[in-house]
Amino acid sequence: MLDRELALVESNLRRVLSSDVGLLRTAADLLILAGGKRLRPTILLLAYHAAGGGEARAAQDTRGAVSLATAVELLHTASLVHDDINDKSELRRGQATINARWGDGLALLVGDFVFVRLLGLLATCSPREIRILGDCCTAVVEGETLQMLHRGDWGMDEALYLAIARRKTASLFAACGELGAIAAAGTEEQIAALAEYGENLGVAFQIQDDTLDLVGQEEVLGKPVFLDLDHGSVGLAAQYALEREAGAVEILRAGNRAQITRMLQDSGALAYAARTACAFIGRARSALAVLPDSQARDELQRLAEYVIIRDR
Amino acid sequence: MLDRELALVESNLRRVLSSDVGLLRTAADLLILAGGKRLRPTILLLAYHAAGGGEARAAQDTRGAVSLATAVELLHTASLVHDDINDKSELRRGQATINARWGDGLALLVGDFVFVRLLGLLATCSPREIRILGDCCTAVVEGETLQMLHRGDWGMDEALYLAIARRKTASLFAACGELGAIAAAGTEEQIAALAEYGENLGVAFQIQDDTLDLVGQEEVLGKPVFLDLDHGSVGLAAQYALEREAGAVEILRAGNRAQITRMLQDSGALAYAARTACAFIGRARSALAVLPDSQARDELQRLAEYVIIRDR
Repeated sequence: MLDRELALVESNLRRVLSSDVGLLRTAADLLILAGGKRLRPTILLLAYHAAGGGEARAAQDTRGAVSLATAVELLHTASLVHDDINDKSELRRGQATINARWGDGLALLVGDFVFVRLLGLLATCSPREIRILGDCCTAVVEGETLQMLHRGDWGMDEALYLAIARRKTASLFAACGELGAIAAAGTEEQIAALAEYGENLGVAFQIQDDTLDLVGQEEVLGKPVFLDLDHGSVGLAAQYALEREAGAVEILRAGNRAQITRMLQDSGALAYAARTACAFIGRARSALAVLPDSQARDELQRLAEYVIIRDR
Repeated sequence: MLDRELALVESNLRRVLSSDVGLLRTAADLLILAGGKRLRPTILLLAYHAAGGGEARAAQDTRGAVSLATAVELLHTASLVHDDINDKSELRRGQATINARWGDGLALLVGDFVFVRLLGLLATCSPREIRILGDCCTAVVEGETLQMLHRGDWGMDEALYLAIARRKTASLFAACGELGAIAAAGTEEQIAALAEYGENLGVAFQIQDDTLDLVGQEEVLGKPVFLDLDHGSVGLAAQYALEREAGAVEILRAGNRAQITRMLQDSGALAYAARTACAFIGRARSALAVLPDSQARDELQRLAEYVIIRDR
């Protein structure tokens, strides 16, 4: 149902990421072509429709929603480019990362470029929308910083794990729900519900992301597994095992992948992570209850399922 | 004349750069305490007054100007933090850089943090002001990228040197003039004049910056000299010498500082750079002619002189 709007997001991305600086243009092309799931624009646009946007509303509102959907994808893309530098990642979506191609210095500037290009999109946003985007960007950077500060922190507790996941990942999903509903001039109840949906979906997404790092298939993921763990980033399953399994820290430190996977399996850590992700998805789905029946709401329900059954 | 407004900029900086993430708070404190010249907020606020802002206008406009002045300082600070990573700089304003203190990864995030914090300030800006800030951010990043792509390009011509200086440096000075005038609801003629002033001042500033890298005193500058040249960044003086002096490229490559300085002196390259900076300052000062007499205009005239006689 979003074909036309997602196509507009793509052409927006192409437009705002054009540059007369060859390298930036090439990098932008690579980033756009690599595609990605466009999950955040999708959520934003579905939230827009679920809160009454679309057919019934002015074309101007839809342009606003498409503009916001472009902005959240830019923020996401910029943060991936900078993450890949800090994680020394060489592969993303099956392609060489920007830092692998051109080195860290230029990759830093490419990330900056993608990010600054979202500023122009704010010119058509309301003060409230700008504040939400600004707060969300802040939360993402703070979350990334906390994560980096806690690299190799084998004593992290679940509350800290979740606090980091909320900032670095869920804040953007929450903003997508909230912004979509605001663009549709939804009620405050709808706006809060869709923010709540995004927030819970985002935490589940992060838990699944961390699990895929441990049990995913490289050829499906398009990037190496065990990347996070190799950098000392502890996912929920590892955190659970560290808290409960004697010897878990030695197994994780030793880095034998088969042994780690077996330990996480046998200790029930992977099952616990899956259960927790499911609980967050349940909360995300419940939040949708206040919205009127609609195809968009059904899609949001399905999307919530997808987040935890996805394999990439 | 700007004491009160610059004090507001400082308190704005403190407010927007606060964070519950300790490292970000500490980094922000260091960046604010290190001070710096606050040249860009000063230009913006002087442009505001020169275009009729201040006493005669609503307090709301002054708040707007102060907010914009905070935003340009944030942009400048963020770009310095990222520059220092790419230049592997260890000293800035006499203090250890963020990357020297905490490593490149956290410095990247600190730069991102400073930058994203300016988004919230845009909520009170007009669409025109947001577009100018967005275009300016884009130009800065494009200019930095061009500069990095041309590291070690000993065949760079003057036009390219100036094009890079315009983007990475002058664009922000131009935005300061333009935004100050817009915040004061100045006429289009005044807005264009103050943008023109900033643009020319900015090019002169960059020429002088590059010269100081060659002939400045480390203890006055608060950072090492020959930093740009060591990274293969060619300033205007070096560019002039490379185009005209047989053997200049060998002398620059060899890296003997005394020999380089002598060559730049004897070939008239330093004098040429000084002359060119003066010419840009002349254009900046001329641009002010359309503005009514005022203390702020006089200050802008003086500030233009300062830019080329400064030793840090």
